[in-house]
Amino acid sequence: MNNWDVFLTPYKQAVEELKVKLKGIREQYQKSSKHTPIEFVTGRVKPISSILDKAIRKNIPLDQLEEKMQDLAGLRIVTQFVEDIETVVQLIRSRSDFEIVEERDYVEQKKDSGYRSYHLVLRYPVQTIEGEKRILVELQIRTLAMNFWATIEHSLNYKYSGEIPLNIKTRLQRAAEAAFRLDEEMSQIRDEVREAQQIITRKQEQGRTLT
Amino acid sequence: MNNWDVFLTPYKQAVEELKVKLKGIREQYQKSSKHTPIEFVTGRVKPISSILDKAIRKNIPLDQLEEKMQDLAGLRIVTQFVEDIETVVQLIRSRSDFEIVEERDYVEQKKDSGYRSYHLVLRYPVQTIEGEKRILVELQIRTLAMNFWATIEHSLNYKYSGEIPLNIKTRLQRAAEAAFRLDEEMSQIRDEVREAQQIITRKQEQGRTLT
Amino acid sequence: MNNWDVFLTPYKQAVEELKVKLKGIREQYQKSSKHTPIEFVTGRVKPISSILDKAIRKNIPLDQLEEKMQDLAGLRIVTQFVEDIETVVQLIRSRSDFEIVEERDYVEQKKDSGYRSYHLVLRYPVQTIEGEKRILVELQIRTLAMNFWATIEHSLNYKYSGEIPLNIKTRLQRAAEAAFRLDEEMSQIRDEVREAQQIITRKQEQGRTLT
Amino acid sequence: MNNWDVFLTPYKQAVEELKVKLKGIREQYQKSSKHTPIEFVTGRVKPISSILDKAIRKNIPLDQLEEKMQDLAGLRIVTQFVEDIETVVQLIRSRSDFEIVEERDYVEQKKDSGYRSYHLVLRYPVQTIEGEKRILVELQIRTLAMNFWATIEHSLNYKYSGEIPLNIKTRLQRAAEAAFRLDEEMSQIRDEVREAQQIITRKQEQGRTLT
Repeated sequence: MNNWDVFLTPYKQAVEELKVKLKGIREQYQKSSKHTPIEFVTGRVKPISSILDKAIRKNIPLDQLEEKMQDLAGLRIVTQFVEDIETVVQLIRSRSDFEIVEERDYVEQKKDSGYRSYHLVLRYPVQTIEGEKRILVELQIRTLAMNFWATIEHSLNYKYSGEIPLNIKTRLQRAAEAAFRLDEEMSQIRDEVREAQQIITRKQEQGRTLT
Repeated sequence: MNNWDVFLTPYKQAVEELKVKLKGIREQYQKSSKHTPIEFVTGRVKPISSILDKAIRKNIPLDQLEEKMQDLAGLRIVTQFVEDIETVVQLIRSRSDFEIVEERDYVEQKKDSGYRSYHLVLRYPVQTIEGEKRILVELQIRTLAMNFWATIEHSLNYKYSGEIPLNIKTRLQRAAEAAFRLDEEMSQIRDEVREAQQIITRKQEQGRTLT
Repeated sequence: MNNWDVFLTPYKQAVEELKVKLKGIREQYQKSSKHTPIEFVTGRVKPISSILDKAIRKNIPLDQLEEKMQDLAGLRIVTQFVEDIETVVQLIRSRSDFEIVEERDYVEQKKDSGYRSYHLVLRYPVQTIEGEKRILVELQIRTLAMNFWATIEHSLNYKYSGEIPLNIKTRLQRAAEAAFRLDEEMSQIRDEVREAQQIITRKQEQGRTLT
Repeated sequence: MNNWDVFLTPYKQAVEELKVKLKGIREQYQKSSKHTPIEFVTGRVKPISSILDKAIRKNIPLDQLEEKMQDLAGLRIVTQFVEDIETVVQLIRSRSDFEIVEERDYVEQKKDSGYRSYHLVLRYPVQTIEGEKRILVELQIRTLAMNFWATIEHSLNYKYSGEIPLNIKTRLQRAAEAAFRLDEEMSQIRDEVREAQQIITRKQEQGRTLT
């Protein structure tokens, strides 16, 4: 493949469009004074060096990247509470601007490493100057604590090419437990917080109208 | 209508999504080293005061705004050359992420005032937290010179509530002629310029790879 | 005060400028392949309703807001590790584009509530169309875990006007301990992670050059 | 020089900061319901291929780029009317966040090619992670019509390496005259338009408060 830039252009476009779309959900909740299940949204196109590494590791021929590497375009929705993940999944399922190809629930069934997250693979239509192109996009949904832990684990996996030494692995699991614990404690006060956040939103909107 | 903010939310969302989509066209052209027919893209939701003014002026009941006021959401594509307008119109017609409801060609048939521009009305599906909503969006396509003149005329029309005094009207027509003249002169050197711009783009890309 | 919009304009401007400046630090670290002590930067102008509430609660006359309410403009730097906070504080102290008026270390000396964060008050010069204006800006520096907890506590404090019921207070303290624990576990694997992140950055840069 | 990315980082940072600062001027005018002399602001760091070309053409050793190539960082302010240029220049002179090193008035004294624009060279202090760095920045101020023409001329100059054939040069001069003519016609209706724009701004703000 001699032109990565051209190959990745529709993926970049899809990431930009989906970021605007998913951030829009957040704003709609805020405007309607409901607790928003979305804390923030990020997106990225996989760096070329990571594509090459993964292609070698998973034995994917470069001319089959489009179908076999599902995370060339990646979006992530981060939530405050574990319970918000389900709400977001429902919202994603109800949309008609893309198709869901696959769902994997690593929240219910966490990985051995301690990784927790909800994954969806979407088929999203991008309009290009040469016509419509339907590409795969990976969407991850997780809490702030899950996200923090996963960022750390990702770095370490990379450093050790997937073979993290046992002593570090053990520490990483302890950190995963601390993150899990934080999520649990937060869930305990969740109803209180949701109600409180709605009061704040309403108050601010009145402030905007009154002054 | 007691909540403009909620009513206008899908229009705001549509404007944000379409800005990203139309700006994407520009980038695709640049990446493929072709002359881009798009200089820049802007978008806006009509300010509430202008909605009210127009509703009164055109006698539109507020509960029929969605169907009768086609420019609540407005996008504008500005081109360098008159010839680029046609290219953009073709691109818009070939997309499958919205439907074209209406086209009005004020480039071929300029208005008496001197106004020139190509107008399309689109029906664009927005995904909201309450389901899909298909809303009207106005898309204007014009050159830099047409755009400059139109901005000025818009201000004056507003000031005089559509009844611009004769002496100012005459000056405005002279300005429209100067803008038209500029477009014509530019068209004359268009092929030269298009070729020159492709050379620049390719040069910069080589610079990026080599250094 | 009859025009909040005009009064808050320099604060809004300061927030925009400082966001670009502080985000720039992050990029400089990434470009030089060093571990960046900054995970993300946010900023906001205090909503008018919150200004009024605080003015009443703290008995601040509206004509003394500029000097007595130090967080009209607020910036926040969020870090991965507790140790990064000190690095960021040093960087802030070494800059010459503002003056530090005050520092409060709630990381070493956490509040009774469980709140941890490092606060600085800056005097920042804004150029306005009527000349230079030197305004106060609050800068908070905290880890991801501290930030998560503080967001939750802020909502609850707001709901109960600062008087959180005892049972919720207890739960909140348990959550604070979970957050603290997570920070500690992360610090344990910090050196490993820092090194890993540098490897990733260098790798990606090579990828960019080679392909 | 083996690392352009590192060398250009402070220039990129300066461009980002100055864009926010100059766009801020625009907003301040709009909030105070005055005609804004700024239509839009753009900025860019000179592409590496153009730096190399210019260094060869002007015989600038690469280790003297910082002092001898004044437009590594470039900002542009575009105005509606010729008269706005003077207003903007005054504003720039009154600021204390940078120093003016040089001014060149190609509006009064247009170049033989037909080029018109007001140029300033600023010395702007950037805070880097290695301390303050004072770099040169070029600021161009011109009308929409001047800008349109200059963009075209730049492309052609590039294509013909500064030696545009006579027949194209003649056409370019005719286009320059058409642009000049448009500016003159616009100046004629300037006072009318300025007043009209203030009426619109005030109206929109009332709309925002009332609804």
